[in-house]
Amino acid sequence: MMDVPRVDMLREEPGRPAHPETFLSSQRGKNGFAPVKVGVDFSVCVVLPAGGSGERTGLQTPKQFCLLMDRPLISYTIHAFERVSWIRSIVVVVAEENMDLMTSIIRRFKHTKVRVVVGGSTRHRSICNGVMAVGEEDEEEELDNKVVIIHDAVRPFVEEDFLYQITMAAREHGVSGAIRPLVSTVIATTSESFLDHTLERAKYRASEMPQAFMYNIIHRAYQRCTEADFDFGTECLHLVQRYCAANAKLIEGPPNLWKVTYKRDLATVESVVKDTLSRSVCVITDGRSHARMLADSLRTAFCSREMEANIIPDVTGENGRYPLKTWNFIQFSMNASDLAKVESTLAAVEANGQTRLHPVVIIVVHLSTREQWPPFADLARATSLRNIFTYGVHLQQTTDTERQERSLSKAAELASALIRDRNRALAGQLLQAW
Amino acid sequence: MMDVPRVDMLREEPGRPAHPETFLSSQRGKNGFAPVKVGVDFSVCVVLPAGGSGERTGLQTPKQFCLLMDRPLISYTIHAFERVSWIRSIVVVVAEENMDLMTSIIRRFKHTKVRVVVGGSTRHRSICNGVMAVGEEDEEEELDNKVVIIHDAVRPFVEEDFLYQITMAAREHGVSGAIRPLVSTVIATTSESFLDHTLERAKYRASEMPQAFMYNIIHRAYQRCTEADFDFGTECLHLVQRYCAANAKLIEGPPNLWKVTYKRDLATVESVVKDTLSRSVCVITDGRSHARMLADSLRTAFCSREMEANIIPDVTGENGRYPLKTWNFIQFSMNASDLAKVESTLAAVEANGQTRLHPVVIIVVHLSTREQWPPFADLARATSLRNIFTYGVHLQQTTDTERQERSLSKAAELASALIRDRNRALAGQLLQAW
Repeated sequence: MMDVPRVDMLREEPGRPAHPETFLSSQRGKNGFAPVKVGVDFSVCVVLPAGGSGERTGLQTPKQFCLLMDRPLISYTIHAFERVSWIRSIVVVVAEENMDLMTSIIRRFKHTKVRVVVGGSTRHRSICNGVMAVGEEDEEEELDNKVVIIHDAVRPFVEEDFLYQITMAAREHGVSGAIRPLVSTVIATTSESFLDHTLERAKYRASEMPQAFMYNIIHRAYQRCTEADFDFGTECLHLVQRYCAANAKLIEGPPNLWKVTYKRDLATVESVVKDTLSRSVCVITDGRSHARMLADSLRTAFCSREMEANIIPDVTGENGRYPLKTWNFIQFSMNASDLAKVESTLAAVEANGQTRLHPVVIIVVHLSTREQWPPFADLARATSLRNIFTYGVHLQQTTDTERQERSLSKAAELASALIRDRNRALAGQLLQAW
Repeated sequence: MMDVPRVDMLREEPGRPAHPETFLSSQRGKNGFAPVKVGVDFSVCVVLPAGGSGERTGLQTPKQFCLLMDRPLISYTIHAFERVSWIRSIVVVVAEENMDLMTSIIRRFKHTKVRVVVGGSTRHRSICNGVMAVGEEDEEEELDNKVVIIHDAVRPFVEEDFLYQITMAAREHGVSGAIRPLVSTVIATTSESFLDHTLERAKYRASEMPQAFMYNIIHRAYQRCTEADFDFGTECLHLVQRYCAANAKLIEGPPNLWKVTYKRDLATVESVVKDTLSRSVCVITDGRSHARMLADSLRTAFCSREMEANIIPDVTGENGRYPLKTWNFIQFSMNASDLAKVESTLAAVEANGQTRLHPVVIIVVHLSTREQWPPFADLARATSLRNIFTYGVHLQQTTDTERQERSLSKAAELASALIRDRNRALAGQLLQAW
């Protein structure tokens, strides 16, 4: 495992854990607070060009449609915008041949606020189509106040507070864009591939996404630009500078704005999402005092693994808010009749709709001295199809305190590995905690 | 799981799989052939500056020392050079406070050809110390022909054929360097953080590592450069251009040359390594015809998962070469007495020294109708400490062909998940293949 130092995410106060809907705010939200609700009294829309062929990934599937935990990358990006209350609509621009696929993704993952429009033959033609489409949403007099955010479908980790900064900068200056420091030195080459000169790194920045524009400015830029711009241009900031004399306000974005470019980047996205989903766990004791004692020991072990653990007796009443705060549950089981309790946790998780976005993990800690696993295997098979991965961990029951502690520590190790990996193949397995 | 299309790595010919020592050549070596052995009749040395503090990763441990599967990143990079026969020596430059750590890494992972020298207060001062150190290795008259490769400790995936290209270009032109196309548009900013102008992306490249220099050129550049260069410069190509009028020949490198910069990049490296380790598996039947039949079914299932499977009766004699070609083994077991056979596989793997670099996975496919697992759990605990992760998969034994097939298919799914994840926490577990 990686040597990741402790960071400030060992929170135990019930009100503080990151709400699932803000979970992607991982870079900023170290304190776990949901962002302050902001009011925006003008129309803000998003254009997401998703027409790329992804040739740099070396995959046949364009990268925006590649699956990460059975969900296409673009669905993660769409969700990053749909969860922002002040964003009115999202226009996704895709190639003609991907219209059906995109429509089915929106239906399957129940995305809201989204329209799909057909793209053009180049990036600028596609963005232009998207801008025209968002223009149709408002009355003409409202267009003067409208802000259009343009983003890439393959940058899934954009956060509300950065979107707010970009949006307000566009309101103030007409145009804004995200930048990042250069990671490599940039050099100019001769036609024979020799070094011509080296750029002074401090004077330059990488231009990233999102960018934001007053609608009238980006609309005018596309009306005025040439066919050559449409065919060979890539940078919207350049177009509005050239055709509308609007110089973008540049704002340094967080490192997680990076663009999925190579195949390895897909693995990185999956790892970042899994890390974020693995920060907390809810331990359900069913009100038994023995289970409560074991839960306390588990919590200590989880804390040393930088995971927050909340312990609750059940998921009813006031406790119903806990399942909303995590994707991971641990439940104790003495005998086969406890299956019903696991099922009521499952029902609560599904009622919340959490399984729409990410797989939920339920670990049944088995306390019986004999194995009574078969009914769980059937349950696990059924829930796996509904995006809930159920695993069993058999805890050793002994009066030898030291062995009991060792078993609890192994159970925590197994549970955190299962939570971190979220591996569908292992769903339904009973692991031995000794 | 990700949607990764089939690529050309479904090889079954015994002579073709990638040899472990060339496994990192993943981008080029799609056909799996080991690179052509090249002769280099001059001295080639490597300087690896590893003094960075890694502040961009947000980790307390400098990133070159972060652990990936219990091995520091810098050990992967060192190995990429030590396995190249024509590279004579590797000088690692580290901060004074990391000398002991670095020395212990070299000892623990049995690296060869490596010397450690103390770095300076800046990147250029450290590289300069490294260059001086490699200069001490040869007689003065040999220095005229000596090539020095400078690389980053945090770019672990450099391949022999690219090193060869860079080396030969330095021999011909005095200086050479790796470049990559720019991923983002580069822009110049005003002092008030507005867009000044956009660079035309096609004219510029990102300057990457490795770079190679005739010793006398880089040595002279460091003798002539100013204190300001030592303090604020970052780019060796710039120094030799300025002080030795040597313009580097630039060669486009593969995408996997990228530099580990952020915390997420560590997860990416781990994922790339795990992918590469998971491409093949060796199935050991112990010469039983029933096991051979099952092995054939497993091989078919592995092939559909883009894993190559070689089936052998044992690891003795001529078959002893197979364990050298993979990090993954499957062995059948009928009863507790088969433990001895598993142990002889373990002995063969350890004799090869493969566990020095990466964890080896052994999956014992359990064919008994009753569980007899406890002795394996003890074995697994012991081997885990020696970097061999042993897992059990209990295959259903039934005369119902359809159920038998389903169990085999589940066994292959479990085995490939265990091989891909290489999770130490799960070592010793017995999983049910139904």
